[in-house]
Amino acid sequence: MEYIDTTLPEINAAVLRSQEAFMSYKNSDRKKKAMFLRAIADEIEALGNELVNTAMSETYLPEARIVGERGRTTGHCRMFADLVEEGSWVEARIDTALPDRAPAPKPDIRKMLVPVGPIVVFGAANFPLAYSTAGGDTISALAAGCTVIVKAHPAHAATSTLVAKAIDRAAKKTGIGEHVFQHVHGKSFEVGQALVEHPLTKGVGFTGSLAGGKVLYDLAQRRPEPIPVFAEMSSINPVILLPDSLSQQAEKTAEMLASSITLGVGQFCTNPGLILAIDNPSLEKFIAVLSARIEVSAVGTMLHEGIAANYVAKLKQSLAQRGVKLEGKSSAGSENRAGMPAVASVSATDFLSNELLTEEVFGPYSLIVKCKDQNELHRVINHLKGQLTSSVVGVEDELAQNADLLQSLQEKAGRLIINGVPTGVEVCPSMQHGGPFPSTTDSRFTSVGVDAIKRFVRPVSFQNFPQSLLPVELKDENPMNIWRLYNNEWRK
Amino acid sequence: MEYIDTTLPEINAAVLRSQEAFMSYKNSDRKKKAMFLRAIADEIEALGNELVNTAMSETYLPEARIVGERGRTTGHCRMFADLVEEGSWVEARIDTALPDRAPAPKPDIRKMLVPVGPIVVFGAANFPLAYSTAGGDTISALAAGCTVIVKAHPAHAATSTLVAKAIDRAAKKTGIGEHVFQHVHGKSFEVGQALVEHPLTKGVGFTGSLAGGKVLYDLAQRRPEPIPVFAEMSSINPVILLPDSLSQQAEKTAEMLASSITLGVGQFCTNPGLILAIDNPSLEKFIAVLSARIEVSAVGTMLHEGIAANYVAKLKQSLAQRGVKLEGKSSAGSENRAGMPAVASVSATDFLSNELLTEEVFGPYSLIVKCKDQNELHRVINHLKGQLTSSVVGVEDELAQNADLLQSLQEKAGRLIINGVPTGVEVCPSMQHGGPFPSTTDSRFTSVGVDAIKRFVRPVSFQNFPQSLLPVELKDENPMNIWRLYNNEWRK
Repeated sequence: MEYIDTTLPEINAAVLRSQEAFMSYKNSDRKKKAMFLRAIADEIEALGNELVNTAMSETYLPEARIVGERGRTTGHCRMFADLVEEGSWVEARIDTALPDRAPAPKPDIRKMLVPVGPIVVFGAANFPLAYSTAGGDTISALAAGCTVIVKAHPAHAATSTLVAKAIDRAAKKTGIGEHVFQHVHGKSFEVGQALVEHPLTKGVGFTGSLAGGKVLYDLAQRRPEPIPVFAEMSSINPVILLPDSLSQQAEKTAEMLASSITLGVGQFCTNPGLILAIDNPSLEKFIAVLSARIEVSAVGTMLHEGIAANYVAKLKQSLAQRGVKLEGKSSAGSENRAGMPAVASVSATDFLSNELLTEEVFGPYSLIVKCKDQNELHRVINHLKGQLTSSVVGVEDELAQNADLLQSLQEKAGRLIINGVPTGVEVCPSMQHGGPFPSTTDSRFTSVGVDAIKRFVRPVSFQNFPQSLLPVELKDENPMNIWRLYNNEWRK
Repeated sequence: MEYIDTTLPEINAAVLRSQEAFMSYKNSDRKKKAMFLRAIADEIEALGNELVNTAMSETYLPEARIVGERGRTTGHCRMFADLVEEGSWVEARIDTALPDRAPAPKPDIRKMLVPVGPIVVFGAANFPLAYSTAGGDTISALAAGCTVIVKAHPAHAATSTLVAKAIDRAAKKTGIGEHVFQHVHGKSFEVGQALVEHPLTKGVGFTGSLAGGKVLYDLAQRRPEPIPVFAEMSSINPVILLPDSLSQQAEKTAEMLASSITLGVGQFCTNPGLILAIDNPSLEKFIAVLSARIEVSAVGTMLHEGIAANYVAKLKQSLAQRGVKLEGKSSAGSENRAGMPAVASVSATDFLSNELLTEEVFGPYSLIVKCKDQNELHRVINHLKGQLTSSVVGVEDELAQNADLLQSLQEKAGRLIINGVPTGVEVCPSMQHGGPFPSTTDSRFTSVGVDAIKRFVRPVSFQNFPQSLLPVELKDENPMNIWRLYNNEWRK
């Protein structure tokens, strides 16, 4: 089926409706919002095999992955429903009046987070469910009290349409206004541009390429009223292998990395695209095992032809750089969307002199950088751009000796991992999925976990308000029984 | 005394030193950081009359104001010292491992806020102490664990130098590295530009004009790595006078507004520059009383010649717009920096058709917009740009009847005030000083109160870290006894 681009007048009308819907949805009762979010999960589950089959046919992702992703999607719907129902996320602060204070009385002031307005979400190619139509951006924005317009990713427009209809049904069943959520199609750049540039749009969520994310970011910053863009764009997720660990378990480490590199045909933003280690015989052994594993690994089908073609081109470009040596490449697989796993190596000297090697090759590829010594390893780390994650594999003693290296890595990433791989992003309050530029456009926020809601809110102070006019979260009697900072003390 | 602009090579060296200092200062013990912040307060107080006299001679602000501002400055040094010493501000979240979870084990993940790096702060013309060298931006950034480079405002460079030396003494006395805080001078645009564009600069604090703030914002967004700019720029702080209240207390309301308009020669970002009301005899009475008060109000001396000249020009321009009628203007005062209080009125029709009237006239001036009815009042509110504050004066019944108006105002401002004036910004946890563009560049953050620290941090997750390598805030035993979200439950 062919989906026709939403026209520019239709986009304008959609944003106007979104703003109108926002003015009532923002004050929805928390129980009603929670019901809505849970109903979205129910309606997605009710789509059953039709959703799974449609997503499989559009993305070539295997059934288990789609089913898993559906679970994650309905999981975050229910997680945000719980968060909203509990209510403490609004960060209520209350400072009561001091009418007798000298020289001037202190007024009663109370503060909480409120939603910012209509949010535009771009469906992500690599997460047809968990980061698209009912993905983390959409659901966290709806939980915050924002209205949302989703632009379907053209590569899985049918999947997106199915989910959009499920959300519509959920809205109808729970009495949520019909334009709180809206869904548009757009293959052309102009659709996305019109959504981002509309004066009533207040924020943007995007997961995709650096080029795509940066264009949207720049559009948003050049508006008469700049707005936040939360774009997750590009990360090579360095993994540092410390020497003692490598000498003890080169093989096990290679197995662990081979699985991580090839997982989902390397189409994860947390794919380990860079491996750093000090050059020695253990590293050679590691490379040999990793290459052997990569050579026999299955060739997966990539999400769409554009991504596959991009992978082939970027891989070829990387391998053509001075000093880059192909260490292992999966044979077989010549079909259109084949994503052939590959690993290569390069000396730190060549790596440090070639900016291109710090850029993401989106797919099942990893580059091993051989460092002469600890100093050179440190220089390579300082040379890196911002990352979603950085991992260190080491035994406890050498980790303790490398505290300064961990300090440098912390400046580069949103999540630090010890003795593990970056793939596998837990959805939990302690997850930070967002790192320094260019991994994301705003390292101060996460797109995974409950704190993702913070992207779509701002604080408002209410000074000298009569009790009757205060939002329920700020009333004296605390009817929701939420945690509040009351005269500088946390209480319920 | 003449201060010479810091040269561009010196700026580069300063930012490099700031980054180097950051790598150790960021991990300073919380008690040491608190001691440093308290020592800054002590050293500022130790400057005694020399500071007061210097600031008075550079800004023409009266002694009581300077003394008051000094109290606010030392107050926020001690407030942030307390915050840092207590420690819960880092928003620690801990999710412990579930090694037996199926299908995959859950790793241990912990998250907290960490400082972003070197911050550049521009001294503010209108707050020589509280928003300049040891102002809220500097002190909250230092509290976060960032290093700071302050560019002195050229209009009070001697005051700035005195305070900078006090901070240097505080650093020396408490064993803080000598480049954690640095101070530079710059009358030329290039100095500020070089600071903002330096690749190691990670954030910017600014309080000043819309033109100045927007230029810095654009520079920062066009860097290869965009960085946040917290610029507080322009706000006309609308005050809505509801009819019942006005009919009951036109006189009292006029007195209250006259004081607020003329406070500090109108040189506050929260100065009430716009008064909205429905046209009726009570409004006429209000205008008569306000104008009479303005006509006899003292003419103050403005901060510097540039601000005074700008006020004269902007006031003249506003009064020259179609339909704008001068209602009252203070007589007397013709000296160079005189800021003559003035009020004018205009019909809502003329206001709605003239964008220029929504812009700030920085000084003791307020424009009264006469609306035909409630609908027109609502249209005027929707027509406004983003504001730091919005105020409503009304009796309780009519406030309840105007809930939709309060909802619209909430979309426009960071702080809503009932039956009060916007001037007088409390320093407390519930204060939001930051509103939608163009009042500030980022309405999600405040520049006043403890939450100001949030501007200079980002979250980092620590996955599968051994206890020995975790930051102290995240260790199991919680040695600092801070509030943490532990497996989704708040505890100490």
